[in-house]
Amino acid sequence: MADAGGKTLTVPQRRPLKDALAYAGRVAEARIGFALSGLEGDVPEAMLYAVAGGKALRAFLVLETARLHKIDPVAVAGAAAAIECIHAYSLAHDDMPCMDDDALRRGQPTVHKKWDEATAVLAGDGLQALAFELLAQAECPLRPKLNLVITLANAAGVRGMVGGQAADMAAETAKEPLSLDQIIALQAGKTGALISWSALVGPRMAEAEREPLTTYGNALGLAFQIADDVLDVTGDASVVGKAVGKDHAAGKATFVSLLGLDGAKNRAASLVEEACDALSPYGDDAETLKEAARFVIARTH
Amino acid sequence: MADAGGKTLTVPQRRPLKDALAYAGRVAEARIGFALSGLEGDVPEAMLYAVAGGKALRAFLVLETARLHKIDPVAVAGAAAAIECIHAYSLAHDDMPCMDDDALRRGQPTVHKKWDEATAVLAGDGLQALAFELLAQAECPLRPKLNLVITLANAAGVRGMVGGQAADMAAETAKEPLSLDQIIALQAGKTGALISWSALVGPRMAEAEREPLTTYGNALGLAFQIADDVLDVTGDASVVGKAVGKDHAAGKATFVSLLGLDGAKNRAASLVEEACDALSPYGDDAETLKEAARFVIARTH
Repeated sequence: MADAGGKTLTVPQRRPLKDALAYAGRVAEARIGFALSGLEGDVPEAMLYAVAGGKALRAFLVLETARLHKIDPVAVAGAAAAIECIHAYSLAHDDMPCMDDDALRRGQPTVHKKWDEATAVLAGDGLQALAFELLAQAECPLRPKLNLVITLANAAGVRGMVGGQAADMAAETAKEPLSLDQIIALQAGKTGALISWSALVGPRMAEAEREPLTTYGNALGLAFQIADDVLDVTGDASVVGKAVGKDHAAGKATFVSLLGLDGAKNRAASLVEEACDALSPYGDDAETLKEAARFVIARTH
Repeated sequence: MADAGGKTLTVPQRRPLKDALAYAGRVAEARIGFALSGLEGDVPEAMLYAVAGGKALRAFLVLETARLHKIDPVAVAGAAAAIECIHAYSLAHDDMPCMDDDALRRGQPTVHKKWDEATAVLAGDGLQALAFELLAQAECPLRPKLNLVITLANAAGVRGMVGGQAADMAAETAKEPLSLDQIIALQAGKTGALISWSALVGPRMAEAEREPLTTYGNALGLAFQIADDVLDVTGDASVVGKAVGKDHAAGKATFVSLLGLDGAKNRAASLVEEACDALSPYGDDAETLKEAARFVIARTH
């Protein structure tokens, strides 16, 4: 395919979800590994460790929505790496003893368990800075790129992910358990903001209509968190790769405690339907994104 | 003063250091306060708390070097706020028990003492995201702005501030105390990178020659850290506003342990001279920046 300037673009064909996720993981890890090359010591090592072995769902959403909008994948590799940096930093910090106090993540010791708390703080901090460096260095036009920097900072910050995590911490000591609306708002920040941002990279880069992928991303993010709550109850820690049953044991309000197990599963399924329906303007080309939505609620880890 | 497009610029006249520092602090805090307006809870409150009451040296360097290059101060207010966000986040994280374990900062309880460790982690994380949001939203041309985003992310990250802090943590458990060259390299990351970045905002925004302010910023950053080591030995905690004597008591290699107290003071003084000499292309207009360099080694807090 050639663009108007005659430059050959290498927009790939659609591929099955499993391959597309693996590819997204490789793109993000390669970009991050290259950025850290030549550095020695625990902190750069912990940064790579924190990024490795995830599902790369967010990087996949970046690359796949860019593909739908005929954006050269090279132009969005930095954005794919950036969102995985943000996600990985949030896990390294959230797993710390003063936060969720988790020892296991992706079937491996969490960063502060493998190294120590100082390394977890610094690796997380370094990953957040690296996210913005990689995004701002992406090989793409300035205006959409700056828009991506602003929206990522907002999604990652106190009006997005950090705010959601803060609300989650506050809920633990609150007198009343959260209502369904409060949990939906909390999760829209904690998990939803990064997923929604990832799904909008394609239209933002192309400066195209954002509505279909806004609906898709918001529904997917919420379905993802409901599925997480379901996994917390039904999952096997050895398969999930992290501790399960903690929220349930702590008596925390979750989608399962509020909607019941079947109610939560049904809600997630109808959100996936909503997400898939929103993709109709893209036709068959969006099939892998639909597959991703179905995967999110069918996954065992 | 009017620029080529006829728009009236409001580049202020030079003012004395004390006024310029206070002004820079007000600009940064106002911008950050506005960004956090409407948010409730411990984390946004802790973010503002972490920013308030500092010397605002870095924001001052941003505004003052922009003034030297005839940049509208409105265009760099976001950059001034951004660097104070990064600085404040680094203090909130570095003061935590797993890092430097400090209870006092700017004469007030540190963030994890006033709230708790989770709040310190999240407030720091939120401030780093906010830094990039404010910088990327600055009202200035896209190309220099993106350049500022990339260079700030690099200065704040594992090749800059985070890397310097990691080296500092590693030095505590190392078998041999650090050499002078190693401490200079460590401090160039830990303290120097942000100071140098701040001093280059003016020429970067103006896309002008960076050499004079590169020399100034690098010399100033090193002088600043030597002065910190001197204060650790000679300072009074009630005036300094944080614990003193810790590095000395811990037997850590510092500029004072390596050069002696007089040797360290002499080194700092010659760095200040170097910093001031580098400003000669700017003539009398750079007098406040010279005053700042002299202040850095004369300060008692």
